[in-house]
Amino acid sequence: MYVGALDIGGTKTIVAVIDEYGKVYGKERISTITSDCYAHLERCLEVLRGILKNLGADESELSGIGVTLPGIVDSKEGKLIFAPYEKWENIPVASFLSERFRHLDVFCENDVNACAVGEQMFGLGKKYKNYIWMTVSTGVGGAVVNDSELVKGLHGFAGELGHLKVEYEEPELCPCGQYGCLEAHGSGTAIQKSIQKKIKEKPEFEEAFRSAEVRADAFGCAALAKAGNEMAKKIFWQAGVFLGRGISYCANILNPDAVILGGGVAESLELLLPGIQYSVEKNTFYPMQDFVIERTALGYEAALLGAAALVLRERDGDQK
Amino acid sequence: MYVGALDIGGTKTIVAVIDEYGKVYGKERISTITSDCYAHLERCLEVLRGILKNLGADESELSGIGVTLPGIVDSKEGKLIFAPYEKWENIPVASFLSERFRHLDVFCENDVNACAVGEQMFGLGKKYKNYIWMTVSTGVGGAVVNDSELVKGLHGFAGELGHLKVEYEEPELCPCGQYGCLEAHGSGTAIQKSIQKKIKEKPEFEEAFRSAEVRADAFGCAALAKAGNEMAKKIFWQAGVFLGRGISYCANILNPDAVILGGGVAESLELLLPGIQYSVEKNTFYPMQDFVIERTALGYEAALLGAAALVLRERDGDQK
Repeated sequence: MYVGALDIGGTKTIVAVIDEYGKVYGKERISTITSDCYAHLERCLEVLRGILKNLGADESELSGIGVTLPGIVDSKEGKLIFAPYEKWENIPVASFLSERFRHLDVFCENDVNACAVGEQMFGLGKKYKNYIWMTVSTGVGGAVVNDSELVKGLHGFAGELGHLKVEYEEPELCPCGQYGCLEAHGSGTAIQKSIQKKIKEKPEFEEAFRSAEVRADAFGCAALAKAGNEMAKKIFWQAGVFLGRGISYCANILNPDAVILGGGVAESLELLLPGIQYSVEKNTFYPMQDFVIERTALGYEAALLGAAALVLRERDGDQK
Repeated sequence: MYVGALDIGGTKTIVAVIDEYGKVYGKERISTITSDCYAHLERCLEVLRGILKNLGADESELSGIGVTLPGIVDSKEGKLIFAPYEKWENIPVASFLSERFRHLDVFCENDVNACAVGEQMFGLGKKYKNYIWMTVSTGVGGAVVNDSELVKGLHGFAGELGHLKVEYEEPELCPCGQYGCLEAHGSGTAIQKSIQKKIKEKPEFEEAFRSAEVRADAFGCAALAKAGNEMAKKIFWQAGVFLGRGISYCANILNPDAVILGGGVAESLELLLPGIQYSVEKNTFYPMQDFVIERTALGYEAALLGAAALVLRERDGDQK
């Protein structure tokens, strides 16, 4: 059985055909047409049809389409409520796609929630029933799984870990307009800002990036840290301390089995982990410190597999 | 139908007979025999039998017993794992009581979790599906309800809101051994410490307590604040700001409909609320700020009704 998966991000979109075991049969990466959401959705279907054709599969072999969206999503209604692009507001994504593709069932989720659902079905969710999924990338996002179910809350916004306040003393401004958010202190962007600050204090730090031929961003900093640069290591330590504060809030409130990290910056989990662990031990109520911190088992494709899992989860639910 | 309810606290225990609508038919308050847990449990059964006799009811009219316990509880096994009294460790409360009372079903929970279950069955839980229950008393405790179900987590410890870190700059030591916990900054004990600090700075503050003929504790401070004393009001504002930080963590992580407060200090919710609201607006991600903050609908009897609800919940579950 095949399902269609659309992982729609702010810059790029991945369209794929995936089976019930998470095997990806065909995949294409396209630019997201942020200027026109409807045109982009039409384009996604075109690409999906192309992939099926290449596989020699009939459209009727597709049992549903899962879509991850970069913003606030009403998953019950299959609507994108808001994303920060022109007119990406109140878009009835599910019905729009369904009407144009054999009236198939279409399921939508916010990208991080989808990652957690994907982890549940294809990754570490087989091992853990209660976990926090945390994306550490340009920003910080999250999702909560309790007793193997995604926690949604009143509006489906549960898991906004990026806006947990982790610094009150010298809080940085977050894009959300508040101060001291985890996103402003523990994200890739925050790491980049720390690099700039450090370079102003110690110009030789800029030289280190130049001679290593890496950019002065989170990825470059990771490269320096892995090569033993103390300043670069300290920046990751500090970001880890802030991430650990946010994780400790989740742990005290939810007593999870595991915290699963994804996203580009979390690729360097070994650099973040010393700071995270220091902070978790200091800030988590003692009897709840025995959770595991692991990288996602789904790698770069967490959200794409999550999109497929949205369809499969419904089908499994129906069979119960 | 009657159920037996034992609300066992560190100082006092309430034993009651309650019906499925939460009506209390007979109630007796006794001192908790902290020196001998088993003797205390026997005494509770004796009191329960006495209440039934007074009601003219037969023991066979009781359909189960619910027990709230002051410590770490394994509710699946019906065991008290630990409470800070002599030998209150690994006590098989449920089986001990059941063997001595017609082999009835006995259900145990930690006291704050029981409050949340009671609220679910008899109180505001009819109105809200996703809520945080927060006790503000000598300490600070909590419980999480998601989609009308108590969230337990890996060991059943979810909801340890008292140990959320809310102050990093000048953190106070908490009885748990860590610094900056909500319990160390927003509890009745914290308010009492703030009063003592303030009295050292401004001796006329002590005079205010004396002339109002109230003790220099959270209750006395509430009386002064209600009479317009600015210093007393400020102490409640500050405690409210810290409670608001903890509440904002819960809101960002769980997107609740409501935060329900119980416990003695929360009786003065109107004094805490300005600080709480200031802090919630400053620290909660904007789209998730629309939750309600309310006092429990169960008043002083939240835990007792919770004990009854433990039995009724199981019965309802069985009927499904």
